[in-house]
Amino acid sequence: MTYDASLVNRILNDARAEVLSELERLFASHRQTGYGPLYDLLAEYPFREGKGLRPAICFAACRAAGGRTEQARLSATALELFHNAFLLHDDVEDGSEYRRGEATMLRARGAPIAINVGDATNVLAMGPLLQNAEAIGVRKALLIFREVERMARESVEGQAIELGWIAEQRFDLDESDYVTMAYKKTCWYTVIAPLRIGVICGSPPGPEAPLTDELVGLIQLGFLAGIAFQIHDDLLNLEAEEGVYGKETAGDLWEGKRTVMLLHFLRHAGPRQHTRALRLLRTPRSAKSADEVTWLLRAMRRAGSIRHGRDVALEYTERALATEERVLAFLDRSDDRRFLTEMLRYVIERVK
Amino acid sequence: MTYDASLVNRILNDARAEVLSELERLFASHRQTGYGPLYDLLAEYPFREGKGLRPAICFAACRAAGGRTEQARLSATALELFHNAFLLHDDVEDGSEYRRGEATMLRARGAPIAINVGDATNVLAMGPLLQNAEAIGVRKALLIFREVERMARESVEGQAIELGWIAEQRFDLDESDYVTMAYKKTCWYTVIAPLRIGVICGSPPGPEAPLTDELVGLIQLGFLAGIAFQIHDDLLNLEAEEGVYGKETAGDLWEGKRTVMLLHFLRHAGPRQHTRALRLLRTPRSAKSADEVTWLLRAMRRAGSIRHGRDVALEYTERALATEERVLAFLDRSDDRRFLTEMLRYVIERVK
Repeated sequence: MTYDASLVNRILNDARAEVLSELERLFASHRQTGYGPLYDLLAEYPFREGKGLRPAICFAACRAAGGRTEQARLSATALELFHNAFLLHDDVEDGSEYRRGEATMLRARGAPIAINVGDATNVLAMGPLLQNAEAIGVRKALLIFREVERMARESVEGQAIELGWIAEQRFDLDESDYVTMAYKKTCWYTVIAPLRIGVICGSPPGPEAPLTDELVGLIQLGFLAGIAFQIHDDLLNLEAEEGVYGKETAGDLWEGKRTVMLLHFLRHAGPRQHTRALRLLRTPRSAKSADEVTWLLRAMRRAGSIRHGRDVALEYTERALATEERVLAFLDRSDDRRFLTEMLRYVIERVK
Repeated sequence: MTYDASLVNRILNDARAEVLSELERLFASHRQTGYGPLYDLLAEYPFREGKGLRPAICFAACRAAGGRTEQARLSATALELFHNAFLLHDDVEDGSEYRRGEATMLRARGAPIAINVGDATNVLAMGPLLQNAEAIGVRKALLIFREVERMARESVEGQAIELGWIAEQRFDLDESDYVTMAYKKTCWYTVIAPLRIGVICGSPPGPEAPLTDELVGLIQLGFLAGIAFQIHDDLLNLEAEEGVYGKETAGDLWEGKRTVMLLHFLRHAGPRQHTRALRLLRTPRSAKSADEVTWLLRAMRRAGSIRHGRDVALEYTERALATEERVLAFLDRSDDRRFLTEMLRYVIERVK
């Protein structure tokens, strides 16, 4: 399965450029009137080379729904800020060391500052959402606030599920547990909300709540694509080389993260391997042995767990491709509409 | 200086009851549809006995501006949630052990869960703000979002200033540094935003942005009252008995918090005392000696630093009382208007 890389890259790059220039403006204005050093820290994550997937989905959905790029600019910028706020806190919660090829804010500045910069990033995202009232009207601005509330609520619930597993040292989980968690933690803010918010931004003005059925359909599509995206992300973490992926290799094993691959291994390992793996996974990160981590990664490969992960990601992508024709039927036939299809393949093919 | 305790307590108690019943409803509905265990954790801080000062100011300002209690209910609830989210993260950032007489979420559940519960509390506050659109109209709902954005932005900036001092181990600060920090960190979310949001909730409906000049005046009043509140809060931390105040006694000295009293001491101590104090303050909390903390507290008392703190708090309250007649002149003469005056005395007289 391949995707149209030139189309996908063009729309990703354009989206990133739009959002970065909006962010420049936003940071500059706050630096001037507020406490400058905070905004220097705040600018760090967003200006590291990210994929910009969420803004790209939002812009493409907006244009495919009949709108113009400008109509989604503020919302796409807010989505990118929420994403970065989420990463800042996630890195503290997981004790992560690398993000987009550099030290995490946690490692560079310590937990207190990383937490506060995350909070500040969330606050900053509210500004563009408020400006939406003038840019695309009060009705759409409020609808988008509603989407953001839902997205953020699903994300913290997903995070709570995962942190609960860690606190209770639970590894006896099956794939449906993983899917429930990732639906909340990943799908809403990576695919569902960007799609829905894009459509709201671009839809024709009118007094009624727009496109209710269409927006519901996007939940199903975003769910399938988001799960594929997250499994692939976890695969990259296990397999990619550090320089390309931007995080430490197999960082998820160091962190004991419950992935489709790890859970598959634990379900299929013999009793001795199972015990050995659990002993490692329950050891705090700083006390883990690199040799044992390497052993676990190899054992997972031998057990077919990596291949299983790929299979499951592919299956979700195929299900997404099988529904997209129906779910996206209300959108204009255009490069933007085509990007949304290609994106379904891209999420399991990308190398970072 | 005394305050009308029966009036103040009545309005505080009523406000707390209003907000707690709204919170019960909110938590129950999310527990039902979302991931239950998160909402059990989320309910912990708000249902510990707090003062409920922020909702009380909001309700009183709403009614004094001509509105009814119901018109401010959703906003006051959101303010209480934002306050609790702030406390959850503040406790992690400061490594605090006690909050409202019990272990902090940090100590009970660890930093990752405490951070996420803080994030979830922020998200939950958005629900009532969105419901405002139906309850008090779209125009006021958006104005209140704007206030919340400003309040939260000032708070994270104030927090950034304070965390910057800690990171740089700075103690060579004067009172104006403290006031700038506390204006942002405390005044906006404790007094200014509750006052302004209350007035917006209660003001007569109309197509224009209401009461622009009046809202500006509230910034000055809230600044003066907020500084008095924060200095008194820091005094309580140094002086109050654990059982009443709900935090460990002199926790601020353990944390090395820059207060008006500590900064006064450092400016006036002789070289030997100054060196000894700095050595203690720069020692990580867990390595500090209890004897040295006790020595510092006593040395501050002998140096007149505690008395100085009281004097400064009193001075701010007196300045607040000198402006309130003019600044609050647009409000109805009523118990609610009187509460807002009495509250200016209460903030430096309360015992918790």
